[in-house]
Amino acid sequence: MVTGSDTKMTFNRKLRMGMVGGGPGAFIGEVHRKVARMDGKAEIIAGAFDIEPAKSKQMGKELLLDPNRVYENYKQMVQAELDLPEDERIDFVSVTTPNNWHFPIAKAFLEAGFHVICEKPMTMTLTEAKELKKIVESSGKVFALTHNYTGYPMVKQARYMVKTGVLGKVHKIFVEYPQDWLLKRIELDGQKQAEWRTDPKQAGAGGCLGDIATHAENLAHYITGLYIEKMCADLTTFAEGRKLDDDVNIIMHYENGAKGMLHSSQVLTGQENGLKIRVWGDKGGLEWFQEHPNYLNFYQQGKPVQIFRRGNDYLCEAAKRATRIPAGHPEAFLEAFANIYVNAMDTIRAHINGTKPTELELDFPTVDDGVVGMAFIETVIESDKSSQKWTKIKK
Amino acid sequence: MVTGSDTKMTFNRKLRMGMVGGGPGAFIGEVHRKVARMDGKAEIIAGAFDIEPAKSKQMGKELLLDPNRVYENYKQMVQAELDLPEDERIDFVSVTTPNNWHFPIAKAFLEAGFHVICEKPMTMTLTEAKELKKIVESSGKVFALTHNYTGYPMVKQARYMVKTGVLGKVHKIFVEYPQDWLLKRIELDGQKQAEWRTDPKQAGAGGCLGDIATHAENLAHYITGLYIEKMCADLTTFAEGRKLDDDVNIIMHYENGAKGMLHSSQVLTGQENGLKIRVWGDKGGLEWFQEHPNYLNFYQQGKPVQIFRRGNDYLCEAAKRATRIPAGHPEAFLEAFANIYVNAMDTIRAHINGTKPTELELDFPTVDDGVVGMAFIETVIESDKSSQKWTKIKK
Amino acid sequence: MVTGSDTKMTFNRKLRMGMVGGGPGAFIGEVHRKVARMDGKAEIIAGAFDIEPAKSKQMGKELLLDPNRVYENYKQMVQAELDLPEDERIDFVSVTTPNNWHFPIAKAFLEAGFHVICEKPMTMTLTEAKELKKIVESSGKVFALTHNYTGYPMVKQARYMVKTGVLGKVHKIFVEYPQDWLLKRIELDGQKQAEWRTDPKQAGAGGCLGDIATHAENLAHYITGLYIEKMCADLTTFAEGRKLDDDVNIIMHYENGAKGMLHSSQVLTGQENGLKIRVWGDKGGLEWFQEHPNYLNFYQQGKPVQIFRRGNDYLCEAAKRATRIPAGHPEAFLEAFANIYVNAMDTIRAHINGTKPTELELDFPTVDDGVVGMAFIETVIESDKSSQKWTKIKK
Amino acid sequence: MVTGSDTKMTFNRKLRMGMVGGGPGAFIGEVHRKVARMDGKAEIIAGAFDIEPAKSKQMGKELLLDPNRVYENYKQMVQAELDLPEDERIDFVSVTTPNNWHFPIAKAFLEAGFHVICEKPMTMTLTEAKELKKIVESSGKVFALTHNYTGYPMVKQARYMVKTGVLGKVHKIFVEYPQDWLLKRIELDGQKQAEWRTDPKQAGAGGCLGDIATHAENLAHYITGLYIEKMCADLTTFAEGRKLDDDVNIIMHYENGAKGMLHSSQVLTGQENGLKIRVWGDKGGLEWFQEHPNYLNFYQQGKPVQIFRRGNDYLCEAAKRATRIPAGHPEAFLEAFANIYVNAMDTIRAHINGTKPTELELDFPTVDDGVVGMAFIETVIESDKSSQKWTKIKK
Repeated sequence: MVTGSDTKMTFNRKLRMGMVGGGPGAFIGEVHRKVARMDGKAEIIAGAFDIEPAKSKQMGKELLLDPNRVYENYKQMVQAELDLPEDERIDFVSVTTPNNWHFPIAKAFLEAGFHVICEKPMTMTLTEAKELKKIVESSGKVFALTHNYTGYPMVKQARYMVKTGVLGKVHKIFVEYPQDWLLKRIELDGQKQAEWRTDPKQAGAGGCLGDIATHAENLAHYITGLYIEKMCADLTTFAEGRKLDDDVNIIMHYENGAKGMLHSSQVLTGQENGLKIRVWGDKGGLEWFQEHPNYLNFYQQGKPVQIFRRGNDYLCEAAKRATRIPAGHPEAFLEAFANIYVNAMDTIRAHINGTKPTELELDFPTVDDGVVGMAFIETVIESDKSSQKWTKIKK
Repeated sequence: MVTGSDTKMTFNRKLRMGMVGGGPGAFIGEVHRKVARMDGKAEIIAGAFDIEPAKSKQMGKELLLDPNRVYENYKQMVQAELDLPEDERIDFVSVTTPNNWHFPIAKAFLEAGFHVICEKPMTMTLTEAKELKKIVESSGKVFALTHNYTGYPMVKQARYMVKTGVLGKVHKIFVEYPQDWLLKRIELDGQKQAEWRTDPKQAGAGGCLGDIATHAENLAHYITGLYIEKMCADLTTFAEGRKLDDDVNIIMHYENGAKGMLHSSQVLTGQENGLKIRVWGDKGGLEWFQEHPNYLNFYQQGKPVQIFRRGNDYLCEAAKRATRIPAGHPEAFLEAFANIYVNAMDTIRAHINGTKPTELELDFPTVDDGVVGMAFIETVIESDKSSQKWTKIKK
Repeated sequence: MVTGSDTKMTFNRKLRMGMVGGGPGAFIGEVHRKVARMDGKAEIIAGAFDIEPAKSKQMGKELLLDPNRVYENYKQMVQAELDLPEDERIDFVSVTTPNNWHFPIAKAFLEAGFHVICEKPMTMTLTEAKELKKIVESSGKVFALTHNYTGYPMVKQARYMVKTGVLGKVHKIFVEYPQDWLLKRIELDGQKQAEWRTDPKQAGAGGCLGDIATHAENLAHYITGLYIEKMCADLTTFAEGRKLDDDVNIIMHYENGAKGMLHSSQVLTGQENGLKIRVWGDKGGLEWFQEHPNYLNFYQQGKPVQIFRRGNDYLCEAAKRATRIPAGHPEAFLEAFANIYVNAMDTIRAHINGTKPTELELDFPTVDDGVVGMAFIETVIESDKSSQKWTKIKK
Repeated sequence: MVTGSDTKMTFNRKLRMGMVGGGPGAFIGEVHRKVARMDGKAEIIAGAFDIEPAKSKQMGKELLLDPNRVYENYKQMVQAELDLPEDERIDFVSVTTPNNWHFPIAKAFLEAGFHVICEKPMTMTLTEAKELKKIVESSGKVFALTHNYTGYPMVKQARYMVKTGVLGKVHKIFVEYPQDWLLKRIELDGQKQAEWRTDPKQAGAGGCLGDIATHAENLAHYITGLYIEKMCADLTTFAEGRKLDDDVNIIMHYENGAKGMLHSSQVLTGQENGLKIRVWGDKGGLEWFQEHPNYLNFYQQGKPVQIFRRGNDYLCEAAKRATRIPAGHPEAFLEAFANIYVNAMDTIRAHINGTKPTELELDFPTVDDGVVGMAFIETVIESDKSSQKWTKIKK
């Protein structure tokens, strides 16, 4: 179980956390702050929170930070933190800006010697993603990508069951991620979340694709370990005048011969955050739904359906480690997100301590997931643009 | 409500029903018999139940039929029934044989002046389907195709809600139909149901495709009224050595601009009869699941989800007519199947009476659905065979 | 599986069925007719359908009966049927009148040598119930009581699991049966179903108690085999001016030391027919809900929940016998009701054949269940009237 | 929405939190720490964490506290904190010890001028509870009782709907809270949680009753605002040799004429933390289940069921305030628990600021809930001991 104390015994301070992004009105930045705080393992002490310096200051004040540690932009922040004595500097930075800033900011902090926790999609292009991978490798620093849905305990259990052969050979993967919040063109009404997500300059080439379909792809990959070989993709923009896709349909072949379907949308009336995955092998099938995350359904032919429930002893170690409170006391989105932080931060701490992180601590999405994700996004777009032809995955 | 009496007032006898197929060990033939009996509107009095005459006799005996009305084959049956005085002859025949017999049998009975209720897929080819349509038209007889899932009251409610604009413009259709009963090659073990369904000579060019994907297609069409414009289909045979597909993935464009996804399989571990449809328009969304058929979920943006329940006054007339018992007393597969019979038989009765059936009575699948279904099957196969290219629907 | 043919081999005719009650506008009479017909094992040929002779005639006509077999009242019917040659007489009668008529009608037919299928509650008083038991015994005829919910396959599976020790020692029984159809005083608006059920002269001393709480009690008894030792009951009439209870709360001690709770109501807004039972033993727990009858949830400590699904090989023989169509093709209320008929009718047929019915055929509620049910009703009323004191079950 | 910043604008520091209890191996103490941290509004800086001083020290170290602020017992802590300058002292203490310590600790801190957040059941007796109420009142300090289930947004919505008449007059309340973790006598195996909860000296006169049935009672009262008038209670100890009850059955009359049922258990196989409430009025009904806390089902007669979902604009202000992240991103136990803290802490902050807390801030359980809870516990025990007689609620 994740307690507030498990690793503290060998580390006598909280990690010092910085943030770029997460200014007033942001959604995901505040999520990062809440989950970093939850287990008492980190404290936010510095940040450049908004592209408008005044708003960055305002957020720093609200967070009760030392005004000297609240910056006007990320470049100033990198420099100023480097100028501090080592035992005052932040240990890592969380990047929670719109997509177009992920790459330059991550690059700058990595090159200056800071660990980085970064929002997805990782970069604007596959080329950038590959470059970032090189930078991470040469920096020797920890880089975590917040594909947060992989932090759910029952997702870890699903992965374990595939890996240990409980499902047999995987035949079919079905993953979907429907929402409805972009049904109307709220980006025209000044809704900040919608504005940048529907603007190609800030979001990149994918709309719904980069925002959430990429989570679906990552989840399928995390659970099954499989890579897409080729795909046929159909992007649609249902909201008239919108510049990016808001609906995604894909059928896929995986490298092992499995067949896949992925559909995702931000305009499906009444759907909230319906990430759902089903995986079937020749021995068993699994089903997990993000809106009821404490349950994992397991199917076998000719046997009763089994519902695995979070918090039980019969689950795998990774699922147990990702659990804070007993069975029946539901955990949800923030705890799962915090699990990404716990593992990334424990790995950062190991790094600082000069020790080797355990396999369980290393269970968080990395720059490799980011490269796969950007290859996915670019292949989808290529398939769609070339009359929705079957297209080999870019590498 | 369907009572045993509503139409009897103007018709002083039960319909006389014949059957071809439905011998010992058959599944669907006995279903047809149960549902025809249920409401007291028909009595089976004649049949050619099996390709083996001895088995046909055996079944006739079990059904307590007059041995003179139990035939060796359908040709003998047509002739013998015609030789009877008109007021002894069967009124209609139900065709519940393997697929390859549907066309010749239906043709023979229609041309001899009998009404026909026929299993799906209607024929072996689109060409045959079109020919059958001509035969039905020139015969002037009633022809019903047992796409039985359209008989569910909540499916009728779904159709009504699309038709009356409650969903707005339909944007996306998602329909799936997973099973697992063909996971292993039980056709090699003498399982009669599996044998003919996996044999191209009896089943036609589609395996899972013709057996159940066609139900999914029909359900989507019934509810939305939309026609497919083009599709990209990916058929797989997961069970080694099987001659026909056992897994179907399709993405589609509909004529109105809607996008569609259909997946169906008979090898998805632990899936029983998971026909499920979701339809989203710009004003609302619907979800219906065959394994919980008394409920229809209705979604709107920013409003509570609504669960419509069978048996309530707020439902449409077609749904109410398709209901026998009060809300909370669940109805299921047999009752829905019986609803196809009730409407087809009431239409047959109107025909006999020389009256015009009502619009509600005419609510059953016809030869037109059969033509659309065969066009669907042949287009899927063409797309799959031509490297899974986007393919225009055949007409 | 229940086919149309399994027992016909040794019996070359349908059973001849008569009915008392079930006139125009009745609910349960038509249910009895539908379920008797479903499997082709019986045909209704005679009846006294309504207390008004004209309505009885009308119903006979709608049912296409020979007018000579449609009677003005049950006394005339008994006599006239007796006057017929033995091979024309009805084999059994179904009694579907308001409660006050059950006893005299059942008595008359039993004493005249007819088998009886009777609605519940069996009689108006425990005294009558005991008397009827004697009559059944001395008549040597088959008597079935339509506690129809015990006909569901998954209820039979639940019973099997308790009986075979899968649950260990039963500790707690929780059963509930909420409805809302009597929320308003629709008995004042001429609603026939409501009128007699809220009239002590026709319904007896219990309102909701006799109508549905008795089903809940019977279900608990059927599944667990346990008898109530004593109870504390609280009856309420929420609808102002109504003469009988419309809400029931009971806590109970069972003879084996188990504790029980039963609540039932006909005024709980939005509840349709929510019969639900949960049974917990020291090794396992079970949960079954009538509105989703194809599933049975099985609980163990520290293990995944298991969902047993109708139609699978792993179920007990009684559950399999009560199943007509494959897993995933849901069966529901009418099929479960028909299962009571199938077993009762197979037992009647064995009786006619002079053979011994099998244990599986004998699985239907009998006059003993009726005696237990009337003892339950009278004890509830005594407890409630005596300031809701703990009261020993009447015997 | 609860952000990390909403009240900081007017308060330039985190609250200083102390804790008594929550030593190594404790469950609820760590929950209090996580939820206090989550929103960045408080920091734990002092504590007496365990009855064994060495363990208290160990926990302080794990929490990275100043060793000078880690105490051997609560008396030392009160004195030492008072000795500190006012701007270093804790603002409030959280009491998370076994039940027998709640009263003396809360009393000591209140009388010393500290605000208190205290676990339930509040005291060991009703007499103590009334005394504590007087102490709270004379102290003028904030006292919050962690009946944490009232912190769920959809519970607040339920309360709002009852209060605003959406349900009409409340007729029936059904609340249940089954668990299974005490099925076996794990208190004999050194399980710390089980040890004190089954020991009358530490837990008080109620076992399951005081541990969780009291949550059920409080939830029903919170949502409906109703008070119990009298009850008939049946306590059972299923685990042989256990000194306290592990199973509770109660039927109740409420002061407004509503009828109630409450059942709770810690020995129901396979039940995890199944707190569930249903409330029916003459206009509508509600259903909420703790294990799926983001949903609230709303029932009306003759209308579709409505599912209210957390995070939507159509919910009441109290529900919205208790929400951190958007609809479809589930929140759960910890967030609900944190909502009790947020409101209690905002009230404490208002108190420090000398301002008046808003009605929304005051929405947390208080000493009054504790008095009602202890009256409930003592009345249940009196009813059970006096042959389970109907017993008036103690006052």
